[in-house]
Amino acid sequence: MNQTELLHIQYPHLRDLAPFDRAHSATPWLDDVTDKHQRKLCETLEQAVIKSGLQDGMTISFHHAFREGDRVINRVVALLAQMGFKNLTLASSSLMTCNDALIEHIRSGVIRRIYTSGMRGKLADAISHGLMDEPVQIHSHGGRVKLLQDGELKIDVAFLGVPCSDEFGNANGSSGASCCGSLGYAMVDAQFASKVILLTESLVPFPNMPASLVQDQVDYIVQVESVGDPAKISVGAARVTSNPRELMIARNAAEVIEHSGYFYDGFSMQTGSGAAATACTRFMGEKMQRAGVKARFALGGITGSLVDLHEQGLIEKLLDTQCFDGQAAASLARNPDHVEISTNVYANPGSKAASCDQLDVVILSALEIDVDFNVNVITGSDGVMRGASGGHCDVAAAANLTIVVAPLLRSRIPTVVKRVTTRLTPGESIDVLVTDHGIAVNPARPEIRERLEAAGLKVVDITALYERAIALTGVPKAIEFTDKIVGVIRYRDGSVIDVVRQVKESE
Amino acid sequence: MNQTELLHIQYPHLRDLAPFDRAHSATPWLDDVTDKHQRKLCETLEQAVIKSGLQDGMTISFHHAFREGDRVINRVVALLAQMGFKNLTLASSSLMTCNDALIEHIRSGVIRRIYTSGMRGKLADAISHGLMDEPVQIHSHGGRVKLLQDGELKIDVAFLGVPCSDEFGNANGSSGASCCGSLGYAMVDAQFASKVILLTESLVPFPNMPASLVQDQVDYIVQVESVGDPAKISVGAARVTSNPRELMIARNAAEVIEHSGYFYDGFSMQTGSGAAATACTRFMGEKMQRAGVKARFALGGITGSLVDLHEQGLIEKLLDTQCFDGQAAASLARNPDHVEISTNVYANPGSKAASCDQLDVVILSALEIDVDFNVNVITGSDGVMRGASGGHCDVAAAANLTIVVAPLLRSRIPTVVKRVTTRLTPGESIDVLVTDHGIAVNPARPEIRERLEAAGLKVVDITALYERAIALTGVPKAIEFTDKIVGVIRYRDGSVIDVVRQVKESE
Repeated sequence: MNQTELLHIQYPHLRDLAPFDRAHSATPWLDDVTDKHQRKLCETLEQAVIKSGLQDGMTISFHHAFREGDRVINRVVALLAQMGFKNLTLASSSLMTCNDALIEHIRSGVIRRIYTSGMRGKLADAISHGLMDEPVQIHSHGGRVKLLQDGELKIDVAFLGVPCSDEFGNANGSSGASCCGSLGYAMVDAQFASKVILLTESLVPFPNMPASLVQDQVDYIVQVESVGDPAKISVGAARVTSNPRELMIARNAAEVIEHSGYFYDGFSMQTGSGAAATACTRFMGEKMQRAGVKARFALGGITGSLVDLHEQGLIEKLLDTQCFDGQAAASLARNPDHVEISTNVYANPGSKAASCDQLDVVILSALEIDVDFNVNVITGSDGVMRGASGGHCDVAAAANLTIVVAPLLRSRIPTVVKRVTTRLTPGESIDVLVTDHGIAVNPARPEIRERLEAAGLKVVDITALYERAIALTGVPKAIEFTDKIVGVIRYRDGSVIDVVRQVKESE
Repeated sequence: MNQTELLHIQYPHLRDLAPFDRAHSATPWLDDVTDKHQRKLCETLEQAVIKSGLQDGMTISFHHAFREGDRVINRVVALLAQMGFKNLTLASSSLMTCNDALIEHIRSGVIRRIYTSGMRGKLADAISHGLMDEPVQIHSHGGRVKLLQDGELKIDVAFLGVPCSDEFGNANGSSGASCCGSLGYAMVDAQFASKVILLTESLVPFPNMPASLVQDQVDYIVQVESVGDPAKISVGAARVTSNPRELMIARNAAEVIEHSGYFYDGFSMQTGSGAAATACTRFMGEKMQRAGVKARFALGGITGSLVDLHEQGLIEKLLDTQCFDGQAAASLARNPDHVEISTNVYANPGSKAASCDQLDVVILSALEIDVDFNVNVITGSDGVMRGASGGHCDVAAAANLTIVVAPLLRSRIPTVVKRVTTRLTPGESIDVLVTDHGIAVNPARPEIRERLEAAGLKVVDITALYERAIALTGVPKAIEFTDKIVGVIRYRDGSVIDVVRQVKESE
């Protein structure tokens, strides 16, 4: 009788314990020096797809850290189409104008469902006009992790583009040729996906540590010529403005923060990527310097403007889910207090802790905001999708002071409306609206209104802003929709806060 | 009909999607400014235990980064005893001499099962003599993660001691008063446990990032006066030797490495905490300097000796699962290329990649090694447990060159034996044995033997070493055991490689 048999007799509940066989039984790759090092490396992307076990009907995922410069999503989907895959669910953390090429793969049935934070360009236009049989699911950045946690979204294979990785899959976004900076979105996919395929521009020697995506999360690695164009990260959403109206709004927003009661030594802020918000960051810097106030941290998407304040010692830490420009990506590589965080740590309401809960002040943008402070950041005035949920409803719900900045009119179309076309963030989460025609405070926050008025700021009722807009432009013609739902707007907790219906073809 | 109802009619398969309720439905703590910040903080450890939902029969876990200085394990178990808990499974990454206090809680039925890498002192003695009804499960560091991954070991509540944390649970081991350095063991518990309770010496402002244990892994936080005495981390296993026999072995081991074929620019090594191994690190430093050879990385438990080589530029990166002394802990805080890694990234055979698979050379110790190169690191010559599995079988299986260093005799008792009392690492994983009476090479590695002989090193057959030992001491009297199994030795893949039987009371 051997030792294991003796064990089973003495302790029958341990009978599942098997006897030792040989040292490498569970790790056959250790028998072979090449395999030991290179078992994850694939010659081609096709090889990696085959090894991953991807099947029709499964879910594939991507991150959008390269934004308009992404070269992974279209390429992978085109290959999957070529390989004959059908009925896939595409779960990209977001989609951009650069993803127009997906239209044909939706038409041909390669992609049947989409989960994304947003959409732009021709793809968004086609979906708004009824391209898909299934409505697209629009989630926030935090809400995406909640869907993963709750199991509604199950990633079978994640395709994650990175500038550099070693042969075991230790990867980051801040070294190599094409740096996107933070891999905050990809970190979540690497954690939740059954299989993870890295597409990397360069293969560097082990150990490429500390790593953002870690070797124990990665299954296969393919070296590719390019994963993205970092120059295009800041195209679109993130830009520096010289528009006098935007600068005025930004200056007003900085005044609001200064007098809100949340501008104190050790406060925290998120200013995002909008033009006015980015300009506001710079004005905040001046105010902080003058008042001797330092921020404990800035959160979310990080811009060069925030990096400047960090390097001037005005912001202690940068908690970064996404770099909005090259300056931010370079800072992440250089500054030890510029810290990469996952979207789970950033904003998931189901996380054991979301950093947005620590936030004092956030500045957000809006395509529309209505008299009940509900915000639309997805559909344009023509009812077509052209934006993204992003972290909007996440941080709005959590911050102590949520400010929306927006011009009263855009191309002669009112931003302040009676009822938003599509609701993404509920009015209860918005505290202050700053426009070029005045500042409105949510009646639920009378103490804020008092403080701003005491400081001599021009506070008006939001209905007055609405009426001013109407007076300037007339009541806009209602958008005509069919009954067909083409998009489902998921609140951060997974609930349905609104739907987007198909835009009627103009006759 | 509201929008959600319309959605359910158009897409019946989406009928589980609920309508939006209010912004804070899923995050009620956001309604209250205090709760928002402090919902994890508990006044007392007892409060945290109650909140965690711990029940009789569940599994609790601990890390042993403070080694002999730990002040968490005994304290928590004593509290659980006082609170009336019974039949708990204790899963500590290891246990030490400082854990003698557990004996009474095993006797009284508070602890019924134990999973650990090792044991020492009175606790080990009592268990070896039949204290427990259930055999203790001895696992390796990598094997512990495999047991967690495979579900045999399910941690209900992890109690993790840290020197500092913020109110959300961002914690590390390298700042604060009592620094233990790497939290490589705790990182795994934080990942796998259902509930995580942090015991922290200091509460620092949010965001305490970058963090080793991250806020999205932590449920409750209790501030305590002390979690451990860092001065006692290096007591026992890790020490610097001036013993001439140990120095000779260390010098021989360094010679073996130099001529083994694995000493090249860019090689990698693990030298652990044994006295001879630590001394060997220093000799390696001299050889590297002379030969102009630099190591790409050193792995595993990190000592001051390795930090010295790192800071001299001789080792590029330190991959650290555990700091063996204060110098290593201080280096982790200071040196960006001294990187903390979890035991999953270190050595789990079920991990998507274990760093030990990249290892060229490892130096390991042994209590006994037999003529088939099998190694015992758990039971002493009296059959009583007094050691730990550690990463022994993990790195032995994976490294290109596994060297065991040991004196031929210890207190006139042979180390080289016919058959080890207990087998932890199979002989197939051991390549070279270095003793003070000669070097033996596993016949499976004839090329190594040739290289060493060519370099003029004194290579002998292992049976010759055995016979030399016997000639010096006589054949030792066999240890008398009862039939009762008191310990199960789990190989890294989870299989049973040996059992430990109860030592017969001496008459």
